[in-house]
Amino acid sequence: MNYKVIIWLLAWILKIEGFLMLMPCIISIIYREKLGIIYLLLALIAIMAGRLVSRKKPKDMQIYQLEGYVTVGLGWVLISLCGAIPFVLSGDIPFYIDAVFETASGFTTTGSSILTDVEALSRTSLFWRSFTHWVGGMGVLVFILMLIPSAGGSHMNLMKAESPGYQVSKFVPKVKNNARTLYRIYLVMTVLTILALLLSGMPWFDSLCLAFGAAGTGGFGILNSSCADYTALQQWILTIAMIAFGVNFNFYYLMLIHHSRDALKMEEVRAYITIILASGLLITLNIHRAMPELYASWGSALRHAFFQVGTIITTTGFSSTDFDLWPSFSKFILFMLMICGACAGSTGGGVKVSRLLITVKAIRRELYSLVHPRAVKKVRMDGAPIESAVLRSIFIYLTAYFAIFGGSVLIISLNGFDFETNMTAVAATLNNIGPGFAGVGPTCNFGGYAWWAKLVLTFNMLAGRLELMPMLILFYLRTWRRG
Amino acid sequence: MNYKVIIWLLAWILKIEGFLMLMPCIISIIYREKLGIIYLLLALIAIMAGRLVSRKKPKDMQIYQLEGYVTVGLGWVLISLCGAIPFVLSGDIPFYIDAVFETASGFTTTGSSILTDVEALSRTSLFWRSFTHWVGGMGVLVFILMLIPSAGGSHMNLMKAESPGYQVSKFVPKVKNNARTLYRIYLVMTVLTILALLLSGMPWFDSLCLAFGAAGTGGFGILNSSCADYTALQQWILTIAMIAFGVNFNFYYLMLIHHSRDALKMEEVRAYITIILASGLLITLNIHRAMPELYASWGSALRHAFFQVGTIITTTGFSSTDFDLWPSFSKFILFMLMICGACAGSTGGGVKVSRLLITVKAIRRELYSLVHPRAVKKVRMDGAPIESAVLRSIFIYLTAYFAIFGGSVLIISLNGFDFETNMTAVAATLNNIGPGFAGVGPTCNFGGYAWWAKLVLTFNMLAGRLELMPMLILFYLRTWRRG
Repeated sequence: MNYKVIIWLLAWILKIEGFLMLMPCIISIIYREKLGIIYLLLALIAIMAGRLVSRKKPKDMQIYQLEGYVTVGLGWVLISLCGAIPFVLSGDIPFYIDAVFETASGFTTTGSSILTDVEALSRTSLFWRSFTHWVGGMGVLVFILMLIPSAGGSHMNLMKAESPGYQVSKFVPKVKNNARTLYRIYLVMTVLTILALLLSGMPWFDSLCLAFGAAGTGGFGILNSSCADYTALQQWILTIAMIAFGVNFNFYYLMLIHHSRDALKMEEVRAYITIILASGLLITLNIHRAMPELYASWGSALRHAFFQVGTIITTTGFSSTDFDLWPSFSKFILFMLMICGACAGSTGGGVKVSRLLITVKAIRRELYSLVHPRAVKKVRMDGAPIESAVLRSIFIYLTAYFAIFGGSVLIISLNGFDFETNMTAVAATLNNIGPGFAGVGPTCNFGGYAWWAKLVLTFNMLAGRLELMPMLILFYLRTWRRG
Repeated sequence: MNYKVIIWLLAWILKIEGFLMLMPCIISIIYREKLGIIYLLLALIAIMAGRLVSRKKPKDMQIYQLEGYVTVGLGWVLISLCGAIPFVLSGDIPFYIDAVFETASGFTTTGSSILTDVEALSRTSLFWRSFTHWVGGMGVLVFILMLIPSAGGSHMNLMKAESPGYQVSKFVPKVKNNARTLYRIYLVMTVLTILALLLSGMPWFDSLCLAFGAAGTGGFGILNSSCADYTALQQWILTIAMIAFGVNFNFYYLMLIHHSRDALKMEEVRAYITIILASGLLITLNIHRAMPELYASWGSALRHAFFQVGTIITTTGFSSTDFDLWPSFSKFILFMLMICGACAGSTGGGVKVSRLLITVKAIRRELYSLVHPRAVKKVRMDGAPIESAVLRSIFIYLTAYFAIFGGSVLIISLNGFDFETNMTAVAATLNNIGPGFAGVGPTCNFGGYAWWAKLVLTFNMLAGRLELMPMLILFYLRTWRRG
């Protein structure tokens, strides 16, 4: 393994994190919070340390798939470990493991929190917390690839390891340019969300933080009530923003280059919208009928149903109402949406709509070939046949997914909480959502778990964000045995 | 599709069921229960009707895979629908859908019950209920294959469709002889279990019914307390019997033909035993520590732990204690064992140890080939490479499994029960176990669900027993469109 290039890239990651940490310093100046100095000092230390190590570029810049995975895995662990330090030193989150949980939850755009009182945090830390969502949304390494002096032709293996979904490969003939285009779309959409929220009368700090949360599909709020206290208009704006950020970014790219017909034909986006509409309408009917005291008007039932569907399928994790009180049917729809997740190539987490779509198609093909044994039928997506290697990797992903799911619930159940809490705590972290049901529902938090359970859940967040393999490979002994 | 041969086989199934229904008549004579006449009449009707239709053997006896699946799917629906009638006519289970649920639960060796008071049933019906387990354990069609006048060379496709696990194909060069050997092993082991129970002082009727429940890995008890009121020795005998019936029958076959070395090397059996030992010991520690008032002595903790592990992993579903009261950790181990299930080629249900073993190996191979990209490594089982077609079918199975799982929970959650009840109700039926947790725990029953939820759960039992495809194919429109 090419350790030199891995260390060099990790140093670059540290340096970038240092620069990102300068942003909350601006907020601390505006709000005159003294703890901005802590952020400033840590930022400078990170920049200098990163610079020192990354000064000499290694001669051999070859990055194979293995190096790509290991770098991405270690890189995300590194930013979580370092990003947590200011929370501890500023006293906002006194315990380091709690701070690491919160930071990993931020960068992985999960939005699960161990805080009982978010409003007690300093504005500086609140901003840093929400800002990590925005940074994490599009990936840290893709960002670095745009900045660092050309690292040879092996960008692909880094990009591949960090990007959500199976299909990036066909989208990155020129990584640099593409990363720039994607970032531009991301930036413009974030600015539009901020503007819409400002126009609706939301204070600028709230607009900024919530837009970061929606853009990264993260879900950290800045109020203890998450989004329940905002106006109906503001909730609808957030709903639309979240759903928009859960769409495959190829869709916007195709729109931009005037291939709108191809964009509108994208099967994944169609399925995604269909699932949202169907789930939203079913939940509207269900809660309107079952809970007339809370959702008396069709308008509010519709708004809360779609807000929650949007927040869960995109794996954002805001909440406009306590959906833990909803009837079992609506709650189970949300549970399924947790696992389903958003589109591949978006900022959302979960298994991804495209993977599920392909799986359904594979099952249908199996039935078809039972009925017509001699017919040759391939699984197709957007008209193109899915190669068996892709199918295999999807199956491997899914089985690894359920294995990690089961193993994690088993360990954290040692903590004694009930079945629903444990199941949804893992679902919420592994799919980068945020809140679950019962003991980790929208009005509760993850603070009740012991430190070791928090570590397991932190692992889940990282594994979920990086699509399992980059984290699994870190725990595979042969990785380190290979010289 | 060759409808004629399907109908001919279905008529044979009806005829056999008629003969089987004569068995409870013997019990009714012993206990002098008058309702035996109902069983007798129904048996005669079934035999005559079956005879009438199956009198003329179709000329074209070709059974392709599709016909095999459709016959098996319809055949199991048929025996459930007909087997339920005596329960209704005798008044023991007045509602037909309840009776169908109970009968399907019997034949599929699930053991889930809608009865609140088992002890109120007549002896005749109790016997019929337990006897369906024993019949269902080894499959109805395999049984018929032994009896019917040679149906040409296409037995394989029937056997394949009904047998649990992926590996039957290599075991059936001569279906007839093999079925006979397997039945002989099954019979001898059942008799041994009955004898052991009798020697331990259990009444003969209990011994018979419980041995049927253990042999078929079914789990219907004849007491409201399931097995809690039997002695420690009797519970240990049942534990060993259940675990023995969950072993791949190839193991016993190899033992019989003096290939004990090959038998002992079988990876699936080793994994199965390892899982049982590990789970049993972990639960022993957990319940002894967490519930000292109930499991004060190591002996009773050990006994109840292994009884429950044995009953759940083999998907039998007896209970010696109310495991719904156990701490979350132990309960989640049981939940994982529910999904895991017993060995392929046994009478047990679930996903099967071999499938999981191969899946784990496939994930490990994926990691291996990331670290050593140029090495060619195949997934192997018992030394032989697993072909990619087998791997694919396992993945299709697993994804279809989770799809059915999710869809079923979604529908039954409309009934309003909680998350844990719904999740484990589906887990318990789809894996042919019996009881779940909470509202369907060992001291509760499935009677609370509405009739449509019971139908969904009945579908789950049949789908689980027949390894999904034969039931899915019945709901696939193209099956019936094909002439």
